[in-house]
Amino acid sequence: MWRDTTLSQLLSIAYPIIQAPMAGGATGPELVGAVSQAGGLGSFGFGYSSSDQIARGIRDVRELTDKPFAVNLFAPQAAVTDDLQVQKAIGHLHSYHVQLNIDDPQIPQLHDLYQEQIDVVIGERVPVFTFTFGLLPERDMQRMHDEGIIVGGTATNVREALMLQEVGVDFIIAQGSEAGGHRGTFAADWKKSMIGTMALVPQITSRVRVPVVAAGGIMDGRGIAASLALGASGVQMGTAFLTCPESKAAPIYKEAILASTDESTVIMTAFSGKPARGIKNLFASELEPHADDLPPYPIQNELTKAMRREATKQSRSEFMSLWAGQASSLSAVKPAAQLVADLTQEVGNIIARLE
Amino acid sequence: MWRDTTLSQLLSIAYPIIQAPMAGGATGPELVGAVSQAGGLGSFGFGYSSSDQIARGIRDVRELTDKPFAVNLFAPQAAVTDDLQVQKAIGHLHSYHVQLNIDDPQIPQLHDLYQEQIDVVIGERVPVFTFTFGLLPERDMQRMHDEGIIVGGTATNVREALMLQEVGVDFIIAQGSEAGGHRGTFAADWKKSMIGTMALVPQITSRVRVPVVAAGGIMDGRGIAASLALGASGVQMGTAFLTCPESKAAPIYKEAILASTDESTVIMTAFSGKPARGIKNLFASELEPHADDLPPYPIQNELTKAMRREATKQSRSEFMSLWAGQASSLSAVKPAAQLVADLTQEVGNIIARLE
Repeated sequence: MWRDTTLSQLLSIAYPIIQAPMAGGATGPELVGAVSQAGGLGSFGFGYSSSDQIARGIRDVRELTDKPFAVNLFAPQAAVTDDLQVQKAIGHLHSYHVQLNIDDPQIPQLHDLYQEQIDVVIGERVPVFTFTFGLLPERDMQRMHDEGIIVGGTATNVREALMLQEVGVDFIIAQGSEAGGHRGTFAADWKKSMIGTMALVPQITSRVRVPVVAAGGIMDGRGIAASLALGASGVQMGTAFLTCPESKAAPIYKEAILASTDESTVIMTAFSGKPARGIKNLFASELEPHADDLPPYPIQNELTKAMRREATKQSRSEFMSLWAGQASSLSAVKPAAQLVADLTQEVGNIIARLE
Repeated sequence: MWRDTTLSQLLSIAYPIIQAPMAGGATGPELVGAVSQAGGLGSFGFGYSSSDQIARGIRDVRELTDKPFAVNLFAPQAAVTDDLQVQKAIGHLHSYHVQLNIDDPQIPQLHDLYQEQIDVVIGERVPVFTFTFGLLPERDMQRMHDEGIIVGGTATNVREALMLQEVGVDFIIAQGSEAGGHRGTFAADWKKSMIGTMALVPQITSRVRVPVVAAGGIMDGRGIAASLALGASGVQMGTAFLTCPESKAAPIYKEAILASTDESTVIMTAFSGKPARGIKNLFASELEPHADDLPPYPIQNELTKAMRREATKQSRSEFMSLWAGQASSLSAVKPAAQLVADLTQEVGNIIARLE
């Protein structure tokens, strides 16, 4: 029985389908709750959120469902601001701010949200916690496990997967190069860790003991069945859920995904200072050649924040980060519960056809 | 029954497993014959071969098996030699020729082999013909079909797949970004067509009528079952067959594959002037930064030919093109017939486990 994997048992969910955390704000309680209520695992992308926002989201989703859900955060990041580099970046961004009729950004005051974020997540005893961009401090892993929280980490190569297993994660998300949004790579140059899902998943499952979740390019029952065949115990799908009515992605962002082709996405670092896959637009085309001069994450991310927010308000998709995976052309519009039901039906049909 | 796909019916083979053509010389009649005799489809990589070599290979494989086999050629390529650029490239290559104790290469005299190659392939009425790097002239497509030859073309995105269908191919090989060896991209900048197999295959199968063969990152029964789940009618596997005893790949090349990890390969253009995935070595590290200055294929390929041949003789893997896919770490050493038998057994077991 394909549904009854080590992952669905571990997470106490009906179907081993995780709706990917998307920290841009698309994954509010409506989407997370709908996916979890339908038997998958909804995930909040709370990497940019304050402890208050996180507490509110968790409270809201608990009103919608009593099924398990996940919270995702970024592993703690070191960042040093180089004022000269920041000034130069502000210069690169100036014309876009003029076009949007807003002021240039200031040099950002960084305060790492990680500690307050992790405290509220542990305090709330969320059912499942996932993280990306690195490893969790040992102390926090221990606190999670003491509270009975199931913990998953993100790997883009075998070395990262082994490091995650070593620090005690309960499962590993194997992020293939097709995946939309930020690359989770933390122990390699990201360019050297662009390993396709088809190649990555079997190499990781062959080397680790914990359940592996395939991510990257999975849009339908075909991708789920394929991932299970590769040895994964489940899948994580982001782009497929972005166009659900419950997703808070901006209408113009949803339209861009629905109009995309297999050649639409590129990896870009200009929006956030970290590499991420999204639909190529004017901002990416113009700024990407300067990528090496731009400040690292989270500084560049702060610098483009007002621009991205205002562009969303003004429906100017040329300045928005349109994160999407390489199979985004397979997107459709259907309620999350319907999507989960259709996916599970498709997987069953595909497996029956293969016999 | 998973074996009985539209592809196995079309090609009259027992298992929908194509051993990828590898034009470096690894795919001699021994390997091609062994794969075909075992129920897969062996393929010659004859892109660099003369009509005499092709005729001899076909004759030899027909002595080994009466089962179908394939010949692969490159679509005709336009090339203009820029003497100044070539002189500069010879300069870049000089130190390697010194280290190998051979003379610098000359400015190559190009003669396109395509016409003599295609004539012998059609004259020999090979059972299956595949091509890469573009489209076949309409006239040759017609001649193939008049002789009852089944024709397959290589695509790295949906547009290329539709173009191939339009010129009348009988099947399409969907080459994901994980694939070892040369990128087949012909209607896009290759960097914009690095689409992972998991994302590429369902997008192509959703758009074309002809059978699709998945290629890229497929090393075992897991990859085959996954490809079939994605809607492919079969797979093409190169790296998995390179380490067979029947493969004529140099021992040091086989050792490099067996010692590789998921992070070993990169795309490089410095060996041939065309992008290809292989295990990163000294030559690739040193020359790749100059890639944009180097002459295009086939000129650069001619310039490095003596170096690669001599490096192979001297077992100097730092100067050899070690083409391999992103899942090369899953390689094993077993006879081709055993590999085909094990693969088919694995696929059956995986599908049974998924039910």
